[in-house]
Amino acid sequence: MTSWPRYQTGLSTKCPRSIEWSTTSPRSLRPPSNGSSFTMRNTGRHPSDRSGIFSLFEPGSVAVVGSMREARFGGYQTVKHLLDFGFPGKIYPVNPNYDTVLGMKVYPSLNDIADSIDLVVMMTAASAVPGIIRDCVAKKVKTAIIVADGFAERDEEGARLQRQVDSIARAGHLRVLGPNTIGVVNSANGLITTPYRVPYEQVFRGGIAICSQTGLLGPQTLPLFEMRYPLSKICDFGNKCDINELDLLEYLAGDPQTTVIAMHLEEVRDGRSFLRKLKETVPEKPVLILKPGRTTESRKAMTSHTGSLAGEDYVYDGAFRQAGAIRVDSFRELVDIPKILAWQPLPPGNRLAVVTISGGAGVLGIDTAVQQGLTLAHLSRSTLDRLSDISPVLAGNPIDLGPGLPAFMKRGDMASHLYGILETLVNDDNVDCISVACPWMLRGALTEVFGPLRSTSVKPIAFWVPSPSLTRAHEISLNLEALGFPAYPDCDSSVRALAIAYKYSVARSRVRRSEVQAR
Amino acid sequence: MTSWPRYQTGLSTKCPRSIEWSTTSPRSLRPPSNGSSFTMRNTGRHPSDRSGIFSLFEPGSVAVVGSMREARFGGYQTVKHLLDFGFPGKIYPVNPNYDTVLGMKVYPSLNDIADSIDLVVMMTAASAVPGIIRDCVAKKVKTAIIVADGFAERDEEGARLQRQVDSIARAGHLRVLGPNTIGVVNSANGLITTPYRVPYEQVFRGGIAICSQTGLLGPQTLPLFEMRYPLSKICDFGNKCDINELDLLEYLAGDPQTTVIAMHLEEVRDGRSFLRKLKETVPEKPVLILKPGRTTESRKAMTSHTGSLAGEDYVYDGAFRQAGAIRVDSFRELVDIPKILAWQPLPPGNRLAVVTISGGAGVLGIDTAVQQGLTLAHLSRSTLDRLSDISPVLAGNPIDLGPGLPAFMKRGDMASHLYGILETLVNDDNVDCISVACPWMLRGALTEVFGPLRSTSVKPIAFWVPSPSLTRAHEISLNLEALGFPAYPDCDSSVRALAIAYKYSVARSRVRRSEVQAR
Repeated sequence: MTSWPRYQTGLSTKCPRSIEWSTTSPRSLRPPSNGSSFTMRNTGRHPSDRSGIFSLFEPGSVAVVGSMREARFGGYQTVKHLLDFGFPGKIYPVNPNYDTVLGMKVYPSLNDIADSIDLVVMMTAASAVPGIIRDCVAKKVKTAIIVADGFAERDEEGARLQRQVDSIARAGHLRVLGPNTIGVVNSANGLITTPYRVPYEQVFRGGIAICSQTGLLGPQTLPLFEMRYPLSKICDFGNKCDINELDLLEYLAGDPQTTVIAMHLEEVRDGRSFLRKLKETVPEKPVLILKPGRTTESRKAMTSHTGSLAGEDYVYDGAFRQAGAIRVDSFRELVDIPKILAWQPLPPGNRLAVVTISGGAGVLGIDTAVQQGLTLAHLSRSTLDRLSDISPVLAGNPIDLGPGLPAFMKRGDMASHLYGILETLVNDDNVDCISVACPWMLRGALTEVFGPLRSTSVKPIAFWVPSPSLTRAHEISLNLEALGFPAYPDCDSSVRALAIAYKYSVARSRVRRSEVQAR
Repeated sequence: MTSWPRYQTGLSTKCPRSIEWSTTSPRSLRPPSNGSSFTMRNTGRHPSDRSGIFSLFEPGSVAVVGSMREARFGGYQTVKHLLDFGFPGKIYPVNPNYDTVLGMKVYPSLNDIADSIDLVVMMTAASAVPGIIRDCVAKKVKTAIIVADGFAERDEEGARLQRQVDSIARAGHLRVLGPNTIGVVNSANGLITTPYRVPYEQVFRGGIAICSQTGLLGPQTLPLFEMRYPLSKICDFGNKCDINELDLLEYLAGDPQTTVIAMHLEEVRDGRSFLRKLKETVPEKPVLILKPGRTTESRKAMTSHTGSLAGEDYVYDGAFRQAGAIRVDSFRELVDIPKILAWQPLPPGNRLAVVTISGGAGVLGIDTAVQQGLTLAHLSRSTLDRLSDISPVLAGNPIDLGPGLPAFMKRGDMASHLYGILETLVNDDNVDCISVACPWMLRGALTEVFGPLRSTSVKPIAFWVPSPSLTRAHEISLNLEALGFPAYPDCDSSVRALAIAYKYSVARSRVRRSEVQAR
């Protein structure tokens, strides 16, 4: 019933610095990055204005054109987010019918703003957009986000309007995101452009960038705060009249804040260039892709909601695989799986050790593992001996904690026993990765006990915390994730996350080899 | 990260009577059912003592043999559950080293209890079990639950001990559940035998029975209270030295409280009889089966954790399909999917209408639907006209609420608009089932607005509530489920639930037809 994994609100936000869980709240403001390692590359469009993508995420000044009425949707909300999340640049609300909003002056039009503007966000009627785009061009604005809908996704009239907007922008060297988009999020500077209310005022900084062709993966829908989600950027492409997946892949490949790229793509505009860029990126950063359109029916539906034309699925499937991108199966996977890639080392091989509170869960985990390309590790003699020292009932893989639970509970040292088991497995040359269905009785000193494992482990560990108290499960999961151990909602997904980390490590090696051979 | 769907605690437990969400708390105590419609059928064992299964769930008296020390594991916890959940029968704690526990007299041995005993639950060292089983036989106890482990799942010595126990019980006409089990739950009488602490004191009555070969699906792991889970019975088979899936299927088929049967089975002991009984049951009640062992590795692991021998997967797959049972893929599905079968009507056909807050989610939902055997409904002309009256942007399937959201939000009548859309779809002859990715802005009067739909709809509706506030999502989900509309954790699972409901309706018709032909 939960839409996304839940964390209890009101928990401590204290996090280890190693995972960079600083937030975008005003308390942790930093000046916008100047020395970004972003490098210009050929996007195939607007060759003189590629900095438009930079301005999309790191503008020095933002103008918001839309309704300034206090409501749950509109320009008012965007202005409020920029203030609430501590955006450090200049903010210019624009609307001829208001004098002030949230204590700030409202400008009648873009032309009335004396300063230069990097980014304009517009949420107006579609019919008003061409005029505002003209104003942007006249003012030498670098980038525009057209939130307004009613363009190519609606009807032929909308498609015509979109072509008109595109043509004005193109001639004026203005980069455009949208139309029909909620825009972007940058966790580093508090830039949140969505016109829908976001019921929190903090996002956590981390390595994961999410791009999508739906606003569903935006801050007004994702519980980023409650998840303590380690975010670098979000971008909703909308109708992609200009800025598209290739631009974003190029930008994110060079973005020092981003270590994992997750993309939801209904279609790819320039397949050849995108695949070339994928191949360049994969050796450095994993790229996960959620690509719907596996059926004729869904391809038809795509056409109507973003006006895009989708190709045959098998073509995408083969091309992504060749380029080393990893295809995932659902929104949940696109959001959840990147955590293991952002936090944990890659598995050196595919041999899985399963630690489980339930023999039954272990068995199901093995089914998932083998179907996903992992294999059950044959534990070394010394590991079996050490496990047997901890408890005579533990010898084997899966390591079923169940029979030992009452004894562990009686001795009250569950966390240190589990640590001992994990340390033993990490040091076993026959083990490459570890999934843990973790006892919910784990108490207290988790951080201290598991801390050393975080700093020494070279093998990924993924958790699942089953529990009769969801609050307690969330608390344990949150503590584990604060240490960089991802916690997943069931045994299948923790194993699947490890399998995807392994798939990526294989794809990376293959793409690197093919690059070396090509030289 | 959440292990199971979460509901906020402390919410009102007020529920409509139609779903029978009364609880097992002392406040809602009822005397044990006398006039049960349970009918005796041939179980292939202990022909004279089939009432043993009845005593397993509805004993008039229970003896608990184990440690009475106040601890998180042991006989103390079982006695405490019986008291906390308001078990109305007689309770006899048994342990030679204690005089009282929780204000009750502790008996040195079973022989010291003057009254007759229906059910004995024992959590002692394995070596003590044969003696206690002998005492049970001497005292003409009907049924025993052997919680103790260290039997066939452990080693050859344990297997020998298990054979010994089985032989004593068999000769003495004592039915035995286990060993190596947490036992049972009966929501109707507060019978909870698990020796692990359960951190809540209420479970909700409903139609779903869960049987498993792991304690993981027990009340000490499942957040039954926070989920408001509509439970009838739980049974953990453990090593199945006697009571097995055939006994339970027979009992649950005749159990008036149970409307959906969900079984996790690592192997089936008597395949022919089980399939015959499945075929008899499927026309009346859906049976969902989670059967691991799709890979050689997992079949090997099964042998070690319950001592059972598993057969080839394809044999099970074909047999289950033939008998009309529906196979599910994970613990989560085994627990979540039954809700739609317990609460909603079966779809008359496979034509799906998709209502979605996000076009992107709609597209992915269609992929899942088509892959699972559903098809996208062609809405009738009058439906398209009515949708168009509600908002000109709504005409089509999927019905993408996204473009209309700002207008709906401005008018503040989201719930009644959504009701209007759903009512229109329910009345469309071209629509058989409906999935809804529900706007998280839905407020307040959900119960009043959607109530009529519950009482009139003959087509199943499944929800997903994406939200930036998990607390709010849980609250909406809980409200929807109180009306009998199941809420799932993502768009894929809500569509999959509808597809499984359709699969069951097809299987039911097929099995009924074949029964008629066989006559």
